Amino acid sequence: MTASLISLGLKYQDRKLWILDQQKLPSTEEWVECQSPDQMIAMIRALKVRGAPLIGVAAALALADYAVKGAPRAEILSAAQKLREARPTAVNLMAAMDRMLSEARDSSFSAEALLQTAQDIFREDVILCEKMAQNGASLIEDGDSILTHCNTGGLATVGVGTALGVIRKAHEQGKKIHVYVDETRPLLQGGRLTTWELKKLGIQHTLICDNMAATLMRKKKIQKVFLGSDRIALNGDFANKVGTYNVAVIAHYHRIPFYPVAPYTTIDFECASGDQIPIEERSAEEVQMISKSTSAVYNPSFDVTLVDLVTGLVLDSAYYSQKELKAGALKGLKKEKSGLAP
Amino acid sequence: MTASLISLGLKYQDRKLWILDQQKLPSTEEWVECQSPDQMIAMIRALKVRGAPLIGVAAALALADYAVKGAPRAEILSAAQKLREARPTAVNLMAAMDRMLSEARDSSFSAEALLQTAQDIFREDVILCEKMAQNGASLIEDGDSILTHCNTGGLATVGVGTALGVIRKAHEQGKKIHVYVDETRPLLQGGRLTTWELKKLGIQHTLICDNMAATLMRKKKIQKVFLGSDRIALNGDFANKVGTYNVAVIAHYHRIPFYPVAPYTTIDFECASGDQIPIEERSAEEVQMISKSTSAVYNPSFDVTLVDLVTGLVLDSAYYSQKELKAGALKGLKKEKSGLAP
Repeated sequence: MTASLISLGLKYQDRKLWILDQQKLPSTEEWVECQSPDQMIAMIRALKVRGAPLIGVAAALALADYAVKGAPRAEILSAAQKLREARPTAVNLMAAMDRMLSEARDSSFSAEALLQTAQDIFREDVILCEKMAQNGASLIEDGDSILTHCNTGGLATVGVGTALGVIRKAHEQGKKIHVYVDETRPLLQGGRLTTWELKKLGIQHTLICDNMAATLMRKKKIQKVFLGSDRIALNGDFANKVGTYNVAVIAHYHRIPFYPVAPYTTIDFECASGDQIPIEERSAEEVQMISKSTSAVYNPSFDVTLVDLVTGLVLDSAYYSQKELKAGALKGLKKEKSGLAP
Repeated sequence: MTASLISLGLKYQDRKLWILDQQKLPSTEEWVECQSPDQMIAMIRALKVRGAPLIGVAAALALADYAVKGAPRAEILSAAQKLREARPTAVNLMAAMDRMLSEARDSSFSAEALLQTAQDIFREDVILCEKMAQNGASLIEDGDSILTHCNTGGLATVGVGTALGVIRKAHEQGKKIHVYVDETRPLLQGGRLTTWELKKLGIQHTLICDNMAATLMRKKKIQKVFLGSDRIALNGDFANKVGTYNVAVIAHYHRIPFYPVAPYTTIDFECASGDQIPIEERSAEEVQMISKSTSAVYNPSFDVTLVDLVTGLVLDSAYYSQKELKAGALKGLKKEKSGLAP
């Protein structure tokens, strides 16, 4: 098996796993070889590799690579568990690890089978992105200006992305669009990563501070909001990068459609509502870094938006309106019955 | 005349005008001697001296100092005009310069008379701050957590401040309060200046990114919003540091009282509504600086909040509810009839 898997921010080639260090973008494009699950955990925690779908794929490949290098089964199982817990909010990581664990626990376990599963997860993510892009692009009209938050593109997945994939698809369909990019404090995934991707794609865009979107909405400069998700509850509530809830409220006030975009792997089938989603709090230093303030800090990495503020959810399988979400549409989906699962 | 005027960010002593460079706070406390109106204009534009009331006082003192140093009257008049135009949104600067110009145009003009007027403006600002603090503090209850935006304290005025003066007064009255401080992108006046002031005052506070306030509101962690203003229209609409409108919308959605605090010098008696307020746009570099993005940027320094989102306005003379503002309360005030004017 000599698979070569290549995405914008991850490569698996000649049995080596490479990660583009997203903390160094856009100034420096530095690829780092990831040689162990522990190194992958550190890279996930440090957000060198980030994006809910991407960390699932990256963790699966790191685990498979560990097996291919001859790690004993007990250590593979333990590493999978630790990878699963590297970050607490994004559920895609847990879904990917559960699939790997199920393979590793199988009596017919082999390193090659684990690698095959990781490759399946990679290839499935590419297909899921394409399906979301198709489902979402029809919501975008010629002439729309779109607000997005954080990074949801080729750097957050191994395909075209979630929300940014939708935007890219609309652009490729020839629709004239403009994207307003929230810089996304504190770690600036919008300012550092989304503008970098949009530039590569040749899509017109303007970078703003997160606190400027409301005034653009008041001036009718924004027609739609598309952004990603890290975990979706069965009632349609969802968690995403901090600041998403703020965007949801201002969009609601200005009657601007607000669409999260995510693959089915982001749905937490055990989670009834948003208030059950654990929210990672990160270090004060991430916020203090640029102001040099030494004051106490509140730094949740995510926030929860209730379904009441969601116009509709773009999934890979379909688009669901708020009404459908509230009627329990997500409960009808089954994680083990995805048409894409191997 | 050997007046000595001292505030947190400005000193006029022994006929020398000193400015605390606010761009270097909180890491470095560096006082710079301002030796000419041109230097003051540069410092105002670079936000080394900022805050709507403070730049009015600082410009008046710079002009008086220029006269004391023997500048010819024609140059004083021309310098006053240039100072007046140093920044386009804050109307306090224009009000202060109009008062200085009216003195300079008087046939009995003297450098000492100009200096006296500048001193009057300084001392009046101290009194105005105290009156706002008195009027606003009664709105704060024991146990309140308050959100504030930008910096509105001793660094933004020559007294106790506007919104932060209100908060300080409530604290001095023995009310147990907690302040959430928006860091206030892009120039971080909250993270750099407000936390620095609150620390000096011993008031409990937490620094947040601007995009985190909404999620705190959803969790009922914020009871009231107090912030400043750079220009108030006669109908109660007002301009303030960018991000204020965002705060107004999220406070409205969560039914949290929202109070701008300002002296009467912030009212533009020529301005009927918010859409007539000119909004300064600043350089892309201010936003790009930390993300290193090279994309196009929208960087308005201020935004406009309509009176519909204002619970009430705390002025030096009184507190006005939204209803009173809408009924035209501000039209009844006269700028030339302030009880404080000399």
